[in-house]
Amino acid sequence: MTEGGVTGSMKREIGVGIVGFGTVGSGTAAVLLRNADLIERRVGSAVRLKRIVDLDVTSDRGVALPGGVLSTDLRGLLGDASVDIVVELVGGCGAAKGILLDAMAAGKSVVTANKALLATHGEEVFAAAGRAGVDVGFEASVGGGMPILRALTEGLAANHYVSLAGILNGTCNYILTRMEREGLEFGDALAQAQAAGYAEADPGCDIEGLDCAHKLAIMAGLAWGTPVDVKEMYTEGIQRVTALDLRCAAELGMTVKLLGVAKRGETSIEARVHPTMIDAGTPLARVDGIYNAVHVVGDAVGDVMLYGQGAGARPTGSAVVSDVMDLARNVRLGARGRVPATSFQMDRRAAIPIRPMEDLVTRYYLRCMVRDRPGVLAGIAGVLGEQGISLASVRQQARREGRTVPVVMMTHRAAERAVQAALRSINGAAELVAEPVTVIRVEDENP
Amino acid sequence: MTEGGVTGSMKREIGVGIVGFGTVGSGTAAVLLRNADLIERRVGSAVRLKRIVDLDVTSDRGVALPGGVLSTDLRGLLGDASVDIVVELVGGCGAAKGILLDAMAAGKSVVTANKALLATHGEEVFAAAGRAGVDVGFEASVGGGMPILRALTEGLAANHYVSLAGILNGTCNYILTRMEREGLEFGDALAQAQAAGYAEADPGCDIEGLDCAHKLAIMAGLAWGTPVDVKEMYTEGIQRVTALDLRCAAELGMTVKLLGVAKRGETSIEARVHPTMIDAGTPLARVDGIYNAVHVVGDAVGDVMLYGQGAGARPTGSAVVSDVMDLARNVRLGARGRVPATSFQMDRRAAIPIRPMEDLVTRYYLRCMVRDRPGVLAGIAGVLGEQGISLASVRQQARREGRTVPVVMMTHRAAERAVQAALRSINGAAELVAEPVTVIRVEDENP
Repeated sequence: MTEGGVTGSMKREIGVGIVGFGTVGSGTAAVLLRNADLIERRVGSAVRLKRIVDLDVTSDRGVALPGGVLSTDLRGLLGDASVDIVVELVGGCGAAKGILLDAMAAGKSVVTANKALLATHGEEVFAAAGRAGVDVGFEASVGGGMPILRALTEGLAANHYVSLAGILNGTCNYILTRMEREGLEFGDALAQAQAAGYAEADPGCDIEGLDCAHKLAIMAGLAWGTPVDVKEMYTEGIQRVTALDLRCAAELGMTVKLLGVAKRGETSIEARVHPTMIDAGTPLARVDGIYNAVHVVGDAVGDVMLYGQGAGARPTGSAVVSDVMDLARNVRLGARGRVPATSFQMDRRAAIPIRPMEDLVTRYYLRCMVRDRPGVLAGIAGVLGEQGISLASVRQQARREGRTVPVVMMTHRAAERAVQAALRSINGAAELVAEPVTVIRVEDENP
Repeated sequence: MTEGGVTGSMKREIGVGIVGFGTVGSGTAAVLLRNADLIERRVGSAVRLKRIVDLDVTSDRGVALPGGVLSTDLRGLLGDASVDIVVELVGGCGAAKGILLDAMAAGKSVVTANKALLATHGEEVFAAAGRAGVDVGFEASVGGGMPILRALTEGLAANHYVSLAGILNGTCNYILTRMEREGLEFGDALAQAQAAGYAEADPGCDIEGLDCAHKLAIMAGLAWGTPVDVKEMYTEGIQRVTALDLRCAAELGMTVKLLGVAKRGETSIEARVHPTMIDAGTPLARVDGIYNAVHVVGDAVGDVMLYGQGAGARPTGSAVVSDVMDLARNVRLGARGRVPATSFQMDRRAAIPIRPMEDLVTRYYLRCMVRDRPGVLAGIAGVLGEQGISLASVRQQARREGRTVPVVMMTHRAAERAVQAALRSINGAAELVAEPVTVIRVEDENP
C-alpha cells in the first residue's frame, strides 16, 4: 500500500504519443517536456513523450525533441505497447476520427482538441471508448486552457444546470471588441485580426459561428447527458453586425457578443449561437479581445464564470497535458472510466430534443434603415403590432448623411416566429426599408 | 467489464454521513437529497445520505430528511459500516479535527469545508489521510461553489503556477463595493452587511483578513506543493480603508479590493493579504458584492479566472456534494488516493519559505492627512527621498473642511522595508501629519 492508499502494482511510467505536430502539437510537446518533473511529482508516475507523428518531420517548431521521437510512422505509434495515451491533434473530421478509433481499439486512452469531430461524431467516439474501456479527454476542445469541461463534469457535477452562456470564439470576440472600441467596420476588424494572427486566412468557421456551435454542442451534451446534433442548433455569425450597431448598443447600456447560449427547459433544451446584446455591466460583457468565458448557472451553485485565453499553443497545450495527466492517473491505478466521457453513465443518458428556434421568446434589437418619408415609422410599427410585437423604445439615429436613416427599436419580449414573420413583411416592403432589418437578440437573465 | 472499462465488483451504493447540520450542512443535505437521481446517473452508484449528526435535532432547517437520519450519535455515524464518506461541517479548530481523524482512522474518506482547520492543521490531516489510504475533499473551503481547488490540482495541473490572486472573502468585497458605490464609510457598510446577512455579528475573522489568509494558504500549498504556515503570511484587513481612499482610487483609474496574493519566486513564495489597489479595467476589479474570484497565472495557460458566489448554503453545498461525488467515484473503483490531497505526491513535496514582507517591492498609494502649512509636502517628500522612494504623482485633495488636507501620493516601485521606515518617521512627526498615513499596496501585473 502506498501513501495514497492505492493497492496493487502501479505503472512507473506512462507513455504518450502525439499525432499532429502543428501549433497545438508543438505547444503540447513543449509543456510535456519542460514540465516533466512537475508532472511526475503530481501524478506519481513519469509521463513520457514517446513518439510524435506528423507528415512534416523537418520544419522547426521551436521545440527540442529527444532523438527518434518524431517520425511519419502512425502505425508504429499505434502499435507501440509503451504508448498508453494517444493525443490526436490533427484536427478536422477526416483522418482524425480513424486515428482516435484505431488508438482506442488498440487499448489506448485518447486525448483530443478536436471540437469539430466531437460535435459531429462524438457519439461514435464515446461509444468506442466505452467498448474499449478507455478514457477520452477533450478539455482542450472548448475554451482553450480554461478547465470548463472538467468544471461541468466534476467540479459542479452536483448541479442540475439551468443555463450555459459562452464567449467561445476568440476571433469573433477580438473582432467585436475592435469594432466597439475603435468604431471599425466588420471587414476592417477582420483584416486586423488576420494581420494579428487572431483569424485564419479562411475565417469562415469562426465568423459564421460554426466553431462556437461545435463548442456549445459539446458543453450542452455534457451538461444534460444528451447527444446534441450541432445541425439542429440555430447558428448565426457576426458578419452582419456593424459599428453602428455597437454604438447603438453602447447608448442602450449594452454590448454585443457572439454567444453560445443553452438552457434547460421542461422537455427540451434551447441551444443557439448568434450575436447577442447583453447588459454592459454583466461579467460576460466585460470579456474582451481574444479571451473566452463561460457563464454557468446551476441549481445549487448559482452562477459561476470561467475566463481565459481561448486559443493558442500554450493555453491549449495546458489543457491537453492536464487531460493527459488525468488519464495517466487512471492508467496508473487501473481506474479508467472513472468519469464517463459523456459525463453521465452511458446507460443513464436520455436524448433531449432541441427546441425549435421559432419558439424562442426574448427581447429584440431591430435596426431599420428607413426611407425618410412620412408614415414609414408607423408602417413598421404597424407590421410589428400585427404580429403582437410591442416596442419598448424607438430611437432615430440621424448620424448618416443620405436618403436613409437608421431607426433602432427595442421590443418587449416577443416570439421569434412572430419577429421573423414581421421581418419578412418589412423587408419585402421597399417603401419601408432600404435594406434588410438587422436583428440582434437580447439576453436578459443570466448572463 | 462495464461500459466504462473498469473491472471488478463495484459498490452499488455509497453511504454519506454529515456531521454538523448548520447552514452548510443543510445546504449539503438539500443538494444530496434533491439531486440524488442526477448524482447516481453521473457517478454510476447511488450516493445515499445515511446519517446526519448534530447536537440540535429539533430545529427546522427547511430540509425534509428521511426518518432516522438525524441524531446526536457521532460514534454511531463513525462506526456505521455503510457510511463510506464522512462530511465534516462543524467548522472551527476544536472538535472538527478529531472528527476528521477518527473518520479517516475508521477507513472513511472525508470532505470538509473547514478552511481554518486546513490552514492551521492541514499537514496533520493530510498525513492521516495518507496513512489511512483515504481521500480528503475540501473544495468548499475556498471560493464557495467555484471549483478553484480542482482547477489548481487537476484542470491546470500541467502548469508551473506563476501567481494566484483572489478576492476570497465575500463579506469584505461586499463592504468595499458598498463603500465605493455609495460613498459609505467602513463602519456603516459593515453594519449594512450585517443587516443583509453578509457579515457575522462578530466579523473579526473576515474583516481582519484572516479568513482570506486561510484560503490563500490552502491554495498556495496546493499550487506549489509546500506546507504554508498562515502565521508567516502578512495579513491586513480592510478596517482602515476609507470612502476617501476609494474616491481617490477611482480618480486614479483604480479600485481597492482585499486580495490574497501569492507568487512563486526563485527560492521563496510571496503570500500576503491586504487591501490592494488594482487597475479598474482588470477582471478582478470588476468582481463586486458578495462574489469571489481567483485569478491564476500559469506558465502554459497564461491567465485564467474563476468567479462565483463565495459563500451561502447552496453554493457551498454544491462544492461539498461535488467533492462527495469525486470521492464516491474513487470508493466505487477502489481508486482512492488518485489525486493526493496535497496535489503533489506526499514524498515529492518540498517546503518553500515565505518571503519576508519587508522584501516586497511594489508601488504604494499613500494618503497623508497633512497640516496645512508651508513646507509640509517638502518634508514628507524629503523623508521618502531619504529612503530612496520616488513619487510618480502627488495630488492634494481639498474636499474636507478643516485644518488638515488629504494629500495622495503614488510612489514608483519601492521596497516595503523602506516604505515602513519612512512611515515611522512621518507618522512620528506631528508637524507633518495629523494621523498615521494610510498605505495601500498596488498590484500592477497579473491581476
